[in-house]
Amino acid sequence: MTTQVNILLTGNELMNGDVIDTNSVMLAQQLNDIGLTINKKVTIADELALLSAEIIQLSQTADVLLINGGLGPTIDDLTSQALAQACCVDLHLNLQAHSHLKTWAKRRNTQLNQPNLKQAYLPLGSEIVNNATGSAVGIRIQLGQCLIICTPGVPSELSHMLKDEIIPSLQQLFPITNKKNLIRLQTFGMGESTLQALINDKFPDWPNEIAIGFRAAMPLLEVKLSVQCPKGKELLAQWQHKLSNLLGSHILTIGKSNHVTIADYLVPLLIKSQQKITLAESCTGGLIASQITAIAGASAVFEAGFVTYSNKMKSKMLDVPAATLVSHGAVSKATVLAMAKGALAKSNADYVIAVSGIAGPDGATEDKPVGSVWIAWGNKQTLQAKYYCIPVARQHFQQVVAARSLDLIRRMLISS
Amino acid sequence: MTTQVNILLTGNELMNGDVIDTNSVMLAQQLNDIGLTINKKVTIADELALLSAEIIQLSQTADVLLINGGLGPTIDDLTSQALAQACCVDLHLNLQAHSHLKTWAKRRNTQLNQPNLKQAYLPLGSEIVNNATGSAVGIRIQLGQCLIICTPGVPSELSHMLKDEIIPSLQQLFPITNKKNLIRLQTFGMGESTLQALINDKFPDWPNEIAIGFRAAMPLLEVKLSVQCPKGKELLAQWQHKLSNLLGSHILTIGKSNHVTIADYLVPLLIKSQQKITLAESCTGGLIASQITAIAGASAVFEAGFVTYSNKMKSKMLDVPAATLVSHGAVSKATVLAMAKGALAKSNADYVIAVSGIAGPDGATEDKPVGSVWIAWGNKQTLQAKYYCIPVARQHFQQVVAARSLDLIRRMLISS
Repeated sequence: MTTQVNILLTGNELMNGDVIDTNSVMLAQQLNDIGLTINKKVTIADELALLSAEIIQLSQTADVLLINGGLGPTIDDLTSQALAQACCVDLHLNLQAHSHLKTWAKRRNTQLNQPNLKQAYLPLGSEIVNNATGSAVGIRIQLGQCLIICTPGVPSELSHMLKDEIIPSLQQLFPITNKKNLIRLQTFGMGESTLQALINDKFPDWPNEIAIGFRAAMPLLEVKLSVQCPKGKELLAQWQHKLSNLLGSHILTIGKSNHVTIADYLVPLLIKSQQKITLAESCTGGLIASQITAIAGASAVFEAGFVTYSNKMKSKMLDVPAATLVSHGAVSKATVLAMAKGALAKSNADYVIAVSGIAGPDGATEDKPVGSVWIAWGNKQTLQAKYYCIPVARQHFQQVVAARSLDLIRRMLISS
Repeated sequence: MTTQVNILLTGNELMNGDVIDTNSVMLAQQLNDIGLTINKKVTIADELALLSAEIIQLSQTADVLLINGGLGPTIDDLTSQALAQACCVDLHLNLQAHSHLKTWAKRRNTQLNQPNLKQAYLPLGSEIVNNATGSAVGIRIQLGQCLIICTPGVPSELSHMLKDEIIPSLQQLFPITNKKNLIRLQTFGMGESTLQALINDKFPDWPNEIAIGFRAAMPLLEVKLSVQCPKGKELLAQWQHKLSNLLGSHILTIGKSNHVTIADYLVPLLIKSQQKITLAESCTGGLIASQITAIAGASAVFEAGFVTYSNKMKSKMLDVPAATLVSHGAVSKATVLAMAKGALAKSNADYVIAVSGIAGPDGATEDKPVGSVWIAWGNKQTLQAKYYCIPVARQHFQQVVAARSLDLIRRMLISS
């Protein structure tokens, strides 16, 4: 039997869209690391009756119920009270919690006030979970077959409590029997349905044991393979190898991490090959340069970028001939090639990207709709240019053009 | 009776901590705007039996159940199937959905493949909700007393569908009876606790009816005032006026929207005063230019930006004297002032920002720690420069420097 974990999040700010919930992401990741997965996650407002009813319901289908939020000193913090109701016990002054609060106040050179004292009243029969940084202690209590643990809503306090107290104790209570193995392939260049169709087509014998998931992590598409069975690791390695061969250069990285951009991959690639890159940007307006320079160590591969938004500045900064702009227009093969040549000549770079397009909403002409873009890329020996039409909203367009451009250079580098 | 809205989110990536859920934030905000609040939000993995059981349960306690995710073409997309099970009907080929898919494929110059075709099979008795941008149509069906609407997990598609279809139809079905009035002040330049202390100090008579909330929307701080009582609108207007006077130029905008950047505000300000801006960026590496050009209409106020990352290119592109770089260093008042002068001379702009700093993790010197930055700003008549130390992680540093820089020009413009 796998261990069932349910999560209950409480807070009006979570219900009205004022804050983004990152606590449950932290919970999920840390539980995953010790082989536990979340079964169900429920979020409700700070209302006593709703809270106690939900605690009862979620405790009936789980081995562990983690509650987050509602342990603070103010009147809208109701978790302790709701928990007492759900467990049919009274609230009482917990001496350990009281002592924690006194120490906490002393450290801050303040007196315990009435709202804070409320945080020492816990359900009878519960134990405290230490909070290394904040005033709110966690609460631990058994309800039927379910272990309930309440945690504070402040992310930094939750983080400490998980690391120091909760994760080690859960690991001891529920040791891993069948470790989950997983691998993530970050890809770029193929849509989700194309990729799925290709896998269906090429691997009719794909093993049932390996779950395959897709996640659109704009602009990348992540393919995640996971397996939880005896000899899972070997099986996974074997099929990951087959899939890598199938997808080839569409794969940026293979690993466990899920936070990768194309620049994350391109900058080390340039550092390794001791090559420098420069950029001549019109429609992306500095976005490609900012993605490169967001990566630590970028100064080794990047000296300058030219954001040439107007025609005049394309000529002035990059020596694009006025005649080219007049006869072909700013969004043309001839212009991006001239921009690329100019940027190479003016900088100390080996590689170059030049882009010119119509980000919209205005600027379209009869033969060049919004979303039109020319990308030139290459080095002093080889310059190429390609046209794309990406008819999406302005900022989305800029993101896709940046990703496409960086990917063109990436493919050139790995194939050279 | 208030209208009860439940939300069901589905996706393994939401359960294992791979992604942060921003869709339910979007749903909550847009529902709030038409006077609806979410009662309960449940998140579960992509498992058919769990999904259909949860749909049945959530539909029994709500007037509206909004489901998000699981409409994609791959095998882990199960919402349509789960909905059919919950409603005890079969899946069938929906002709409108089929026609939508054909148009979608045609626009992308591709053939419909088998995985995509799956998206045309919907529960019998359901209607489609148009998806303006993506392949997945939404689904609308009645189960008992509850209206169920399924929406796609891709945020941009959800956003369009809410705006164009779902919010207008819910507004018609459930007109507002007791309207909540709210106003958001986007501020920059003061921390949360300073602001709270200032309000406590200056307004001891702040009315109980007006709830005040703070939200750190990096790099801005949002102050939200809300009221739900008779004559609420008048009361709100009166106190919003007092608060505006207190906060002065720290306020960027006052309104209902909560998606504002400093560039959103600066670009129209420049357009209105018919002024152009140019940028000379070192440590921000194009980020400030990309924030300006992310705004539609930027071409009226921005012609060129200079991303001068190396010392050599600061001299070559902006005529920064080599002697200045040698005697003062790249991160100095003399250098940013020279960069600013160079950028003004080389471009056709009225205003300029120049930045040079140490984004880290490397590059610190004994007297210039990581986080050091000099910002120069002004026009041909007046150039000023200021030093900041912002010792945070690289990308966070770049974001704060960009916000600070744009804000310095903003304050200059509104005071002139």
